[in-house]
Amino acid sequence: MDQLERVMAALKPEAAKIDKYMHVELARMELANDALLLEVLRYGLFNGGKRIRPLLVVFASRLCGNNDDNVYRLGCAFEYLHAATLFHDDIIDNSEKRRNKKSVYKQFGTTAAILAGDYLHALSMAMVGRLSGAKGLEVFCNATTGMVDGEFMQLRNVTKHNLSELEYYDAIMMKTGLLIAAACEVGAIYGGGSSEMIKALRDYGENLGCAFQIIDDLLDYLGDPHKTGKAVGNDLIEGKVTLPLIIALNCTTPKDKKRLLIILATRDERARCVQEVSSIIESVGGFAAAREKAVAAVENALGALQVFPEAHNLYERQVLAGLARYVLTRDK
Amino acid sequence: MDQLERVMAALKPEAAKIDKYMHVELARMELANDALLLEVLRYGLFNGGKRIRPLLVVFASRLCGNNDDNVYRLGCAFEYLHAATLFHDDIIDNSEKRRNKKSVYKQFGTTAAILAGDYLHALSMAMVGRLSGAKGLEVFCNATTGMVDGEFMQLRNVTKHNLSELEYYDAIMMKTGLLIAAACEVGAIYGGGSSEMIKALRDYGENLGCAFQIIDDLLDYLGDPHKTGKAVGNDLIEGKVTLPLIIALNCTTPKDKKRLLIILATRDERARCVQEVSSIIESVGGFAAAREKAVAAVENALGALQVFPEAHNLYERQVLAGLARYVLTRDK
Repeated sequence: MDQLERVMAALKPEAAKIDKYMHVELARMELANDALLLEVLRYGLFNGGKRIRPLLVVFASRLCGNNDDNVYRLGCAFEYLHAATLFHDDIIDNSEKRRNKKSVYKQFGTTAAILAGDYLHALSMAMVGRLSGAKGLEVFCNATTGMVDGEFMQLRNVTKHNLSELEYYDAIMMKTGLLIAAACEVGAIYGGGSSEMIKALRDYGENLGCAFQIIDDLLDYLGDPHKTGKAVGNDLIEGKVTLPLIIALNCTTPKDKKRLLIILATRDERARCVQEVSSIIESVGGFAAAREKAVAAVENALGALQVFPEAHNLYERQVLAGLARYVLTRDK
Repeated sequence: MDQLERVMAALKPEAAKIDKYMHVELARMELANDALLLEVLRYGLFNGGKRIRPLLVVFASRLCGNNDDNVYRLGCAFEYLHAATLFHDDIIDNSEKRRNKKSVYKQFGTTAAILAGDYLHALSMAMVGRLSGAKGLEVFCNATTGMVDGEFMQLRNVTKHNLSELEYYDAIMMKTGLLIAAACEVGAIYGGGSSEMIKALRDYGENLGCAFQIIDDLLDYLGDPHKTGKAVGNDLIEGKVTLPLIIALNCTTPKDKKRLLIILATRDERARCVQEVSSIIESVGGFAAAREKAVAAVENALGALQVFPEAHNLYERQVLAGLARYVLTRDK
């Protein structure tokens, strides 16, 4: 086992502990809450997720020196918000499946999916406010409003196919980076970190989130559909222009660029020409260049951790470094 | 002008001040947020609402002795949450109109309505956490999760037509009472009220909310459609069993009860027989009895205010008493 595998193996019992805390919370809710709500929450929350956001909260807090077990509860709040986002996003995107089972709205209907999302939203805010105070709550709410703002931007940009690389980074920051960075920052706040430590962990989180989303976007072209659970070229077909394609549009020949823009113009063409687009991207090294950006972001994330002295909580540093490297190895 | 009219006239400039603070908040958002999001928020927030919930926050705080102007911002948070609830509820209920204009989802689509609701949700939680601390946030989030829980209960009870009066009170508490009570309680917490004052204002709010919803349910049968903006018998047609009908089911003849249950069983019958149901309710005095319950709730609300010494902030007491009495005079 190399170091990365060791770190990921060590995280399994930690993720299981997060799940345990979520089960306890839901069992407590059984006394007071509607049975259907609980059924929806159990279905939507326990689906084999890796609990990356809660783990970031736990290890950011520990890296700052706090070993309090309540941090698992704080971590759960981030999983609740993440799930709330997915419940609503799947309605918005008409996504029928998530992790190879029916999405919440397909299983229980739109009403239940909207309401269960709202419930988790409020529950998560209450928990973050209670556990990490006004400062943590502010970070958490800013992430939430920022994510919504990003969705509105996407709504408006859906017919805009000449996104710049900068616009792409803004978009993935709102979509993925804000919540991952907030998990790290709120964990650091909860852990009693200095303002330098809090800033370092936020930087780490922003870069991790950025790398995470670039890899996600690469998997859309290059992933194995059996592993990702999505058809190849799904983003392209939906009209989402991601980094490999942006790079290709910027450096291919005028003729190929014109061809790409023609394909992008209609859904039918996009669905018909996934392979052709992929070939053009590959011909200018677009996939490798996008991957390089993800590698650079992970290096920035690792760099941010250097604020913490070498011998300081070595295990926690190794875990956070491992999580950053893990992002580059994802195949689903 | 009688005393009630004087109080309501005095509240107009206060409601205008709430609107002003909301406009300032949205103007501030213009620097950082998506233009479409802002358009949706402006459309959904400025629709002639009376700002009852913010006014309760402001006057509960003042009654407890705090004259700080920031309380208007805290009040706005309750209007934001209320609006978020309406954006989502209109999707769930397929409501095409609200206050004689298209509902948000009809005007901007389901995606925008879900997202704008989520935005206001997070914004309101952040504001309440910042302005009223962990204790206020807890009350606010409990109201939110309780409202969702109530919607799930309603979802499950939609085919249950033999609701007890107690189940009805539980349902209207979750639908309307919790947020109105939370406005009073959080206002009292912000105002630095003693625990006795906080409890009294919460009691006031719960009773006010209860009276408010009973009158709302009465207006569904007895209101002037030109004023309410809704067709007569809308709740009945949707299968919602409210207090006048519950009372009628409990005290009418076995023959009429059987007839009512037959009508309730199908949507077509309900739509065809609104007038007949209304006549049966009227024949057993169901409307008057329901109104008596609302009057009793308002009396309880007024009673709760007696915790505050007679000469203590007389104007604020008069306003809150006036708001409670106003509920009984609503015709839309």
